[in-house]
Amino acid sequence: MPLMDDNPFDSSDSARHAKPLRHVQTATFDHALTLELGGELPGVTVAYETYGQLNAARDNAVLVCHAISGDSHVAQHTADDDPGWWDVAVGPGKPIDTDHLFVICPNLLGGCRGTTGPGSTNPATGEPYGRDFPTITIGDMVEAERRLLDHLGVERLRAVIGGSVGGHQALAWATRWPERVRRVIALATSPRLTNQALAFDVVGRNAIRRDPHYHDGQYYGEQHGPEVGLAIARMIGHITYLSREAMTRKFDANRLQPRDEAVEFEKTFSVGSYLGHQGRKFVERFDANSYIALSTAMDLFDLGSTPSELAAAFRGARSRWLVISFSSDWLFPPDQSRDIVNALVANHAPVSYCNVQSDCGHDAFLLPNDIASYGELIRAFLDDDIASPPEGSAIGRKAEDGFSPTSIFHQRRIDFERIVELIPADASVLDLGCGRGGLLARLKQRDHHRLIGVELDEQAVIACVRRGLDVIQADLNKGLRGFGNQQFDCVVLSQTLQAVRDVPGVINEILRVGHIGIVSFPNLAFRPLRHILAKDGRAPRGYGRIREQWYDTPDVRFLSITDFEEFCHEKSVRIHRRIGLNTEDGTEVFKDPNLDADLAIFVISSS
Amino acid sequence: MPLMDDNPFDSSDSARHAKPLRHVQTATFDHALTLELGGELPGVTVAYETYGQLNAARDNAVLVCHAISGDSHVAQHTADDDPGWWDVAVGPGKPIDTDHLFVICPNLLGGCRGTTGPGSTNPATGEPYGRDFPTITIGDMVEAERRLLDHLGVERLRAVIGGSVGGHQALAWATRWPERVRRVIALATSPRLTNQALAFDVVGRNAIRRDPHYHDGQYYGEQHGPEVGLAIARMIGHITYLSREAMTRKFDANRLQPRDEAVEFEKTFSVGSYLGHQGRKFVERFDANSYIALSTAMDLFDLGSTPSELAAAFRGARSRWLVISFSSDWLFPPDQSRDIVNALVANHAPVSYCNVQSDCGHDAFLLPNDIASYGELIRAFLDDDIASPPEGSAIGRKAEDGFSPTSIFHQRRIDFERIVELIPADASVLDLGCGRGGLLARLKQRDHHRLIGVELDEQAVIACVRRGLDVIQADLNKGLRGFGNQQFDCVVLSQTLQAVRDVPGVINEILRVGHIGIVSFPNLAFRPLRHILAKDGRAPRGYGRIREQWYDTPDVRFLSITDFEEFCHEKSVRIHRRIGLNTEDGTEVFKDPNLDADLAIFVISSS
Repeated sequence: MPLMDDNPFDSSDSARHAKPLRHVQTATFDHALTLELGGELPGVTVAYETYGQLNAARDNAVLVCHAISGDSHVAQHTADDDPGWWDVAVGPGKPIDTDHLFVICPNLLGGCRGTTGPGSTNPATGEPYGRDFPTITIGDMVEAERRLLDHLGVERLRAVIGGSVGGHQALAWATRWPERVRRVIALATSPRLTNQALAFDVVGRNAIRRDPHYHDGQYYGEQHGPEVGLAIARMIGHITYLSREAMTRKFDANRLQPRDEAVEFEKTFSVGSYLGHQGRKFVERFDANSYIALSTAMDLFDLGSTPSELAAAFRGARSRWLVISFSSDWLFPPDQSRDIVNALVANHAPVSYCNVQSDCGHDAFLLPNDIASYGELIRAFLDDDIASPPEGSAIGRKAEDGFSPTSIFHQRRIDFERIVELIPADASVLDLGCGRGGLLARLKQRDHHRLIGVELDEQAVIACVRRGLDVIQADLNKGLRGFGNQQFDCVVLSQTLQAVRDVPGVINEILRVGHIGIVSFPNLAFRPLRHILAKDGRAPRGYGRIREQWYDTPDVRFLSITDFEEFCHEKSVRIHRRIGLNTEDGTEVFKDPNLDADLAIFVISSS
Repeated sequence: MPLMDDNPFDSSDSARHAKPLRHVQTATFDHALTLELGGELPGVTVAYETYGQLNAARDNAVLVCHAISGDSHVAQHTADDDPGWWDVAVGPGKPIDTDHLFVICPNLLGGCRGTTGPGSTNPATGEPYGRDFPTITIGDMVEAERRLLDHLGVERLRAVIGGSVGGHQALAWATRWPERVRRVIALATSPRLTNQALAFDVVGRNAIRRDPHYHDGQYYGEQHGPEVGLAIARMIGHITYLSREAMTRKFDANRLQPRDEAVEFEKTFSVGSYLGHQGRKFVERFDANSYIALSTAMDLFDLGSTPSELAAAFRGARSRWLVISFSSDWLFPPDQSRDIVNALVANHAPVSYCNVQSDCGHDAFLLPNDIASYGELIRAFLDDDIASPPEGSAIGRKAEDGFSPTSIFHQRRIDFERIVELIPADASVLDLGCGRGGLLARLKQRDHHRLIGVELDEQAVIACVRRGLDVIQADLNKGLRGFGNQQFDCVVLSQTLQAVRDVPGVINEILRVGHIGIVSFPNLAFRPLRHILAKDGRAPRGYGRIREQWYDTPDVRFLSITDFEEFCHEKSVRIHRRIGLNTEDGTEVFKDPNLDADLAIFVISSS
């Protein structure tokens, strides 16, 4: 049964004041959409907007999935157009660059901005669906979007991108249609909601459904809908989208100076008048039944709770992944993004992850505040033409980590050269404390089927993504629980051991995750360092790889080659190779390395 | 106008199903209570319960102030009594030990459990106050409680204790009636609410007031009150009382197995049925107007936002303080307790602070999970007879920190003896990294008018409070911002420098806060340590005060006496004294201490 609906707003009685979207297009599909939880929709209309041009190869299309209260208007089409909800990220020259990419943003199934939803006409009755709108899922939304892509002639996406419940759609896309998605960018999302987030949604829906004007969902012909309930739900939601810090910054100085909003909500406190305003605005543009349908779909989304369930959920995924969380997001907390990353790692999927330091809460992914970080990650990740900078270039040198200013002009990294030699050309490699990717970039010039870095510093993580490397932001002191037993041929810890507090823990993890470990560290017993302590009575420094003052070095562990050998003996760690280097001379030290080498490289394994 | 009301529940029509409190007593005061924000109550009835006996000296009374949904029934009176809301903390042998203490717990003003509130009869109309109940404040609650204490013949409290809004009352007591409060225990509270917490309250009140059954507050005679609105408010509140971790633990394994509660709220998810149940239970026992009155009083409570405003608010305080927060409490986050502590420190008030590690959220202070920590702190703090254990006792020795197992049998701490000698007997002393209080306990035997410790470890903090010492839990690496410039005669950093990452920062803070600093640290250049590196080629250890292996020492900074002298020179720090000790021999080293001392003590100041 065909559904044609040129004006997508006729059918949404509740959202009667919503501003029309000038550039929206609609596509109507008249074959029934069978729903995951049973039942069907006899047909479905999808409202969408597009930006940029699909190229001749049809390989530059990017699908942007919006969050619960968004719509198809992701960005301005022209300078005089209404603002889009993600103008910071989408447009000419922006991170999602519409000069090069063809961006598609559909209103999601169950919404109230043009795509079929509870406010749409039920062809069986000629009335809005209301309570008869079936329970839909994220998978059903993806099915509607898939029809749209077919309609637009896009077989394979350059990327699917979404934050929050938009991220749920991106995850569903990549696990259901892996061959159609080259890349996934999932922001501020999760494999399923926390029970805390779920609880807030439940209370919001209770407020709507128990509003006397809800009329069991059939309020479309009435003078009033459940406006109070919907406003209450929106107020709750709004609090959860902000961080406590952001609310303090916004309201604390003038907490008792509310704006005089024309709303019948409490206006004693500034934050109260703000919430009243947000509630009122939302009621004008959004349909309560859509809010129930979409939040329920979000709440039912569930890729699993245990690591093994999650790993199974991502088993078929074929895409390259960028997962981004925000440190102050307590609705979709960073740990949940880590769960996604761990499941991808378990499936050997290429993935980068960054937990952007931000105090903007869940909303951070929509705001300009942190665009320098997350925008740059998106831009770099979408670029098909990323290449490592030439090794000799200033960028290449700057990207090297671990060497002090006095040695930055060294043309060679003898330690990297030796480490590269130690790694078989086809080995899978995990580089812990990879910095800006100096070693990984060298390895990438060879034939490794799997290279991945772990790094704590945000800027270094961004630098790696810029180089086209896969990198996961993590703190080595907190373990490598995301990595499976013996998952890599080789785990490298290059000049990082001395900055790690829990040395036995990290060595254990290296040997659990890798068949072999390659560990390099500065040698405290290097001859001139011994002299400093013995003769001058000062903490060893200023020679070899130990240069900083005792009070401002990033290092917290100081050891010699002999110390490490004893440690390995004590912990039953097998030593395969021991290499001493004099990095100042660029030579290998064969005789008494504990005295004459400033840097040691060990190849180890569990015995 | 006298108000006599023997059955405190007659007047509260809405909370009609509330279980009667069998042991409640009431006191009615018939002189008008003038309210802080204007208006008055013509008289006030206070419902309360007492536990234990007021002693002859009348100095063992403890006032317990309940939180928003509590009542006077803080604990069981007998084994067959209904459970109290704080049975874990109050009773015979419990932390608030009713074998020795006389505990008074009143229902707070504005409540609905016997004390005058919006559901009480307005003598002017003979009807419940309803919307005519005036806006009350925490100060008004304290005034009602003060009348009760006068009535009971309690001039001075051993302590006032409260958590959450009960903590607000405790703060108000100590700042309004300082001479009547010997001690304050403030749990999980704040100088004022965060805007995030405020926002949740506002939404809850909006849900109540916009419930059609609210009838502008005059619902008492109606068949229905604003039950849905109150339930929504309670659901929101409940989420904020729990931590995300606690909700995950409680609901995650069976998230889609709701209990079949007989409530008309969403029951799709386990957490939803739980919230529905909580909402329904609350409506049965609580009055919506009381919820509005009490939450508004809490929201209006405001001791100031800036450190100087807060310091001014506590200027007149005369009590000894124990402030306790809980690490996962996001409604009254630990930072707010730190703000209270900082304001007290600025006023030279004796204060201890502990941020109890807990995953129970704001509710932690009511639950048994962490009672071993917060209960022990309360018990020790309330004890009038705390004495330091004898120095030679096993407890005394165990309480010493910083010395390794091989030296635990030393009868003397020569470093403490020398540090004590360096401190004038009347000096005010701040001991950073005070451990279990070994040095402070020694100093306490002298005449210091002000001694306070800072320590990170929770068990060490509890040990200090057990010894009757004032101690503040804090991380030295995060600075001493709570302490004022030159606030102490002497700041001690005893064998802690080597465990601090930001050495320049901590030294800066010592010199800002203290007239002089006394810093002791292990000497890396101690002769046998030099030999270890020079001859054996191993990281120095196993002699003097540097004993642990390189990979599992808590130390992260390694320095010699000469290093520290150079550091002071470089940073323009003035050295007044330099003492070298051989702690193995128990002697002072006068000749070449950088070679022969294993421990150094420096007396420094800013130049």
